Amino acid sequence: MTDPSLNSQPSDLEEAASALVVFTPSGKRGRFALGTPLLVAARQLGVDLDTVCGGRGICGRCQVTPQIGQFAKHGVSVAPEHLSAWNKVEERYKSKRSLLDGRRLGCQATVQGDLVIDIPPESQVHAQVVRKEAAARDIPLDPATRLYTIRVDEPDMHAPTGDLERLIAALSAQHGLKGLHAPLSLLARLQGALRKGGWQVTVAVSSPMDGAGEIVEIWPGEAAPTLLGLAIDIGSTTIAGHLVDLTSGAVLASAGLMNPQIRFGEDLMSRVSYSMMHEEGAAQMSAAVREAVDTLAGTLCAQADQPREAVFEAVVVGNPVMHHLFLGLDPVELGGAPFALVTSAAGNWAAKDLGLALHRHAKLYTLPCIAGHVGADAAAATLAEAPQDQGGLSLLVDVGTNAEIVLADNEQVLACSSPTGPAFEGAQISGGQRAAPGAIERVRIDPNTHEPRFSIIGCPVWSDEPGFAESSAQTGVTGICGSGIIEVIAEMRLAGVLDEDGVIIASPSPRVFEDGRTRSYLLHDASPEGPRIVITQNDVRAIQLAKAALYAGCKLLMEKRGVTSVDRVLLAGAFGAHISPLHAMILGMIPDCEIDQVRAVGNAAGTGARIALLNRSQRREIEAQVARIEKIETAVEPRFQEIFVEAMALPNKRDPFPKLAEIVSLPKIETKDQTGRRRARRR
Amino acid sequence: MTDPSLNSQPSDLEEAASALVVFTPSGKRGRFALGTPLLVAARQLGVDLDTVCGGRGICGRCQVTPQIGQFAKHGVSVAPEHLSAWNKVEERYKSKRSLLDGRRLGCQATVQGDLVIDIPPESQVHAQVVRKEAAARDIPLDPATRLYTIRVDEPDMHAPTGDLERLIAALSAQHGLKGLHAPLSLLARLQGALRKGGWQVTVAVSSPMDGAGEIVEIWPGEAAPTLLGLAIDIGSTTIAGHLVDLTSGAVLASAGLMNPQIRFGEDLMSRVSYSMMHEEGAAQMSAAVREAVDTLAGTLCAQADQPREAVFEAVVVGNPVMHHLFLGLDPVELGGAPFALVTSAAGNWAAKDLGLALHRHAKLYTLPCIAGHVGADAAAATLAEAPQDQGGLSLLVDVGTNAEIVLADNEQVLACSSPTGPAFEGAQISGGQRAAPGAIERVRIDPNTHEPRFSIIGCPVWSDEPGFAESSAQTGVTGICGSGIIEVIAEMRLAGVLDEDGVIIASPSPRVFEDGRTRSYLLHDASPEGPRIVITQNDVRAIQLAKAALYAGCKLLMEKRGVTSVDRVLLAGAFGAHISPLHAMILGMIPDCEIDQVRAVGNAAGTGARIALLNRSQRREIEAQVARIEKIETAVEPRFQEIFVEAMALPNKRDPFPKLAEIVSLPKIETKDQTGRRRARRR
Repeated sequence: MTDPSLNSQPSDLEEAASALVVFTPSGKRGRFALGTPLLVAARQLGVDLDTVCGGRGICGRCQVTPQIGQFAKHGVSVAPEHLSAWNKVEERYKSKRSLLDGRRLGCQATVQGDLVIDIPPESQVHAQVVRKEAAARDIPLDPATRLYTIRVDEPDMHAPTGDLERLIAALSAQHGLKGLHAPLSLLARLQGALRKGGWQVTVAVSSPMDGAGEIVEIWPGEAAPTLLGLAIDIGSTTIAGHLVDLTSGAVLASAGLMNPQIRFGEDLMSRVSYSMMHEEGAAQMSAAVREAVDTLAGTLCAQADQPREAVFEAVVVGNPVMHHLFLGLDPVELGGAPFALVTSAAGNWAAKDLGLALHRHAKLYTLPCIAGHVGADAAAATLAEAPQDQGGLSLLVDVGTNAEIVLADNEQVLACSSPTGPAFEGAQISGGQRAAPGAIERVRIDPNTHEPRFSIIGCPVWSDEPGFAESSAQTGVTGICGSGIIEVIAEMRLAGVLDEDGVIIASPSPRVFEDGRTRSYLLHDASPEGPRIVITQNDVRAIQLAKAALYAGCKLLMEKRGVTSVDRVLLAGAFGAHISPLHAMILGMIPDCEIDQVRAVGNAAGTGARIALLNRSQRREIEAQVARIEKIETAVEPRFQEIFVEAMALPNKRDPFPKLAEIVSLPKIETKDQTGRRRARRR
Repeated sequence: MTDPSLNSQPSDLEEAASALVVFTPSGKRGRFALGTPLLVAARQLGVDLDTVCGGRGICGRCQVTPQIGQFAKHGVSVAPEHLSAWNKVEERYKSKRSLLDGRRLGCQATVQGDLVIDIPPESQVHAQVVRKEAAARDIPLDPATRLYTIRVDEPDMHAPTGDLERLIAALSAQHGLKGLHAPLSLLARLQGALRKGGWQVTVAVSSPMDGAGEIVEIWPGEAAPTLLGLAIDIGSTTIAGHLVDLTSGAVLASAGLMNPQIRFGEDLMSRVSYSMMHEEGAAQMSAAVREAVDTLAGTLCAQADQPREAVFEAVVVGNPVMHHLFLGLDPVELGGAPFALVTSAAGNWAAKDLGLALHRHAKLYTLPCIAGHVGADAAAATLAEAPQDQGGLSLLVDVGTNAEIVLADNEQVLACSSPTGPAFEGAQISGGQRAAPGAIERVRIDPNTHEPRFSIIGCPVWSDEPGFAESSAQTGVTGICGSGIIEVIAEMRLAGVLDEDGVIIASPSPRVFEDGRTRSYLLHDASPEGPRIVITQNDVRAIQLAKAALYAGCKLLMEKRGVTSVDRVLLAGAFGAHISPLHAMILGMIPDCEIDQVRAVGNAAGTGARIALLNRSQRREIEAQVARIEKIETAVEPRFQEIFVEAMALPNKRDPFPKLAEIVSLPKIETKDQTGRRRARRR
């Protein structure tokens, strides 16, 4: 027999096997088992530590600065050996990407004793500019939850039906509603309401389709309560929502917040791999996104000064990984062929089962996913833009780390996704950052002098205009965001700094300089006080890869449809709203098209969610539409790879852009071979 | 500003405003606010203290014996003023019903200081004999939840439907199931099961009706898990349940327990009035009955050595008040005309919403209620016995404190209820008690000597047989239960001790004695050590009232149907199973009928619940049947009152019982006027 007292007191062994970790500047602290990676510890404490690669030591976003010494304030004494030794992954990262002295990779360094770990500002997930305005749109009102005021027969001892059965009979006779039922909590209040209202009551009925429904709320007499709905678009980076009056269709509030899943990996595949590598990974990410959506619901209700209980309906859209994680489904199968969704169909759920504190019987509708990489957000955007109904061929493109592309006319609708990667969002770019105040978003380069001018987010004047220094003082110039990267590279091409293969060629301008074995372009230099923002050959390559992927997806659909041009390009999403169509076309991100037929359609997914919220027949519409869409899986299409490789070049190398050529003149720069790097070295 | 420290420590005032109450023999103790009635304190502690009238000082079941003095064992010192003074209600009770010295009524006496309160054995809710055997019955198997093993198509990137959609397609193609959906928790395990089973899985589908259903469980490959169901009959006094194998129909376990709502009032109307008088009364009673049903589910699973998670279906029946309280609905409207039910229709619920820990997606079906006083138990009994299909006219009677009566042939089905009161259960009878070991259940009286002989529950020999003293020593003779009361009064009538008006007439036997202004019959005398069990004139009157109510209900239905006799009487329920049909007819409880056509059908409501559990088309059957039943409300039928008054007399006073007369000879005792009491005095 073992001595039970052995287990009854705190074990010294257990105490010794864990250590205290204090993160600064937040001051968050906790005990962790020896061997815990710092990134894991930071996540568990909710410390704002960035990662893009999901802990694989590739992205370098999780850099931390361990502190050594006595920290009376934290009650901790830290010796160097309290952190694991420098490992091969860090060695490799330092040799390829460089790492400041004193820095460690949070995903590699592990706890070996008490620690004080500082998170440098650039490793924090920045507060991003979340764009959230609701597009003005007339939507015919036919919401799933509606009010009905009815007169109910009084009870008759000689025909003793229940009060509920007479209420249901009245709804059938007076409003033609069929197949209704009621939850227990409503039944418990039914008799009181009927008697208080003198056998007249107002009820809210959730009837997502004709012939079935639930009586979800009851008020005595003739009442006119507010019925609200939420339209939520869960993006990989941001979550945006609108609070809508279901009776009038009016948008009462709009708001957005960062997707807290960024802690687990910045792009979708990092999150899928986080789930693969951690048993509770999917559950952690589900909890995080549900909590964020619930917080957003609270923010929206507070903005509109409405109680959460007034929200009876919600519609949620997102790409397949977001859709699955929000529903509590492990996205692991989406990480590899055949990319099997758990469920592709539209879903009708109880909002409370998804962690949302709204009306106790609030319903939640998820739009269908089109395919394993083309989600409910693409379905919503298709619902919002109806590209098949716009006349001619429309290409609907939602640019993100995974672009979702729909090609449609009134005969056929095709869809695919393309793995563009996070370059368009500033990742993998030396000076790249997310869209936040201080980020360069617009660039022009003088074709003669190759001198740049630019504007930054949060500052109304351009860099070459008077007052820029004062206006930009508060934020500084911190980096370059996606729309800025597109513009600078397209401008470099227009100015002749880039050839058709994307090679930075020699220039008399001091802006172009030899940088190791390649050349770089100096966009902005505030050193030694501020950053030096440079466009390297590698940055151009990263954007070429991303744009080639996007273009290849578009082109593949066009080949499947048997066309070589489209009549219209609709750019959806926040990124699409902020990039310059002309510059995107100069880069060859999108196919050749009349420039005035390339337009940003804003958050089309959010608009689609709002349409599904306000009109249940539109839900049937998009469900039927999605079933008809022809799905193309780029990952297994050999032709996609071919187009992708060809599309690495910039127009007009192999693909002529006649409509683009009508408005801009792309410098013809002769090249002797196909590999830019080799040729650049030779020059 | 108030000093916040005033509230931060225990207040002496609060301490002083409550007092410690210790109940013996249980030793349960707790603090209660001064002014709390002892009955309320006992209830809150779960102390076994009886009540029939629901705390109105009428029934006298809650008698307690306060203890005065120092109680070192309990750490309490009790002075007489620690209990409220004797009040008018107790005064009235004592003058009308007598109260032993030192006794108080628990519903009237209130806490005024620390107390030690003894509960005498007769005030405890006795552990009752709960009869629970499942009737052997062949039921065609068509349960709502069934297993299906299917092969599911593998995912195809080129037709990217979700795994769920392919599973649903397979169930449709291979088994013809339509309209299926799946809960989130199943979706979360779907992909793992499909891949582990090599695209073959076994699923449990709950499909209460064709064209709709839920996939509630999934196992990889070909599996043969046990699917169980629960059939529960919630009676006012006892709750009985069967655990059934849904695949074979076999009854794996049967058990019963007392309905814990008895603490709140013994009969239905006491519970309705408890709900009327206490804001949380209905909620307390709902919680109590749900907890009891959940406990019963646990007992049944333990008996059968099965996990609760294997239970996928439950069917619950009960009278309207039990039905409502189990569903969490306040039965207050059932307390008065027009006796409006919250819901009369059959209900499909989630078992977990009713507090039952079974399979997480277990379903629960409640049968429809026929009328405000004729419940789902009567519907279940009708389903089990199908009185309309037995040939000729059948009368189905479930005897309880509220009798539920169905008169049926293949042309018409009528139903009513009749307020018999609790006399048949031993309440309101001087020596009455519930059916428990020691209770007299069988009686014979010698017509010549008027000497009785009897048998008691738990003892195999009669009182006049050798060995009775030894056999009965353990329980003693404690009182007389319902079946015993019926027999003793019927035997008194047969022996000529009672006249046709129910008056106890003078007899040379010492068993009949003058007792104040009336006479009584001495059934058993063990004084001074044991009880003296006497049948008083008041006892006879109470049974006459109860039997007249039951008979009037039967007769009213027969008049509505235009008949004067029935071909068959089916006695349902535990009480019906234990009373002697002959004695019941001698009393005139039931209409005249061939004696071999009067039979006990046992717990027909429980059998009906089991049928609905095993065969979902039988649910449709009884739902349709209940809609067709003609409901008669006795409370507002003037003719019911007339029949009731006439039926106070015993056969053959006004109502000849020709078939009864063929087998027994009822003594004709001439009376000079109609009021038995007056005449009895004159003799």
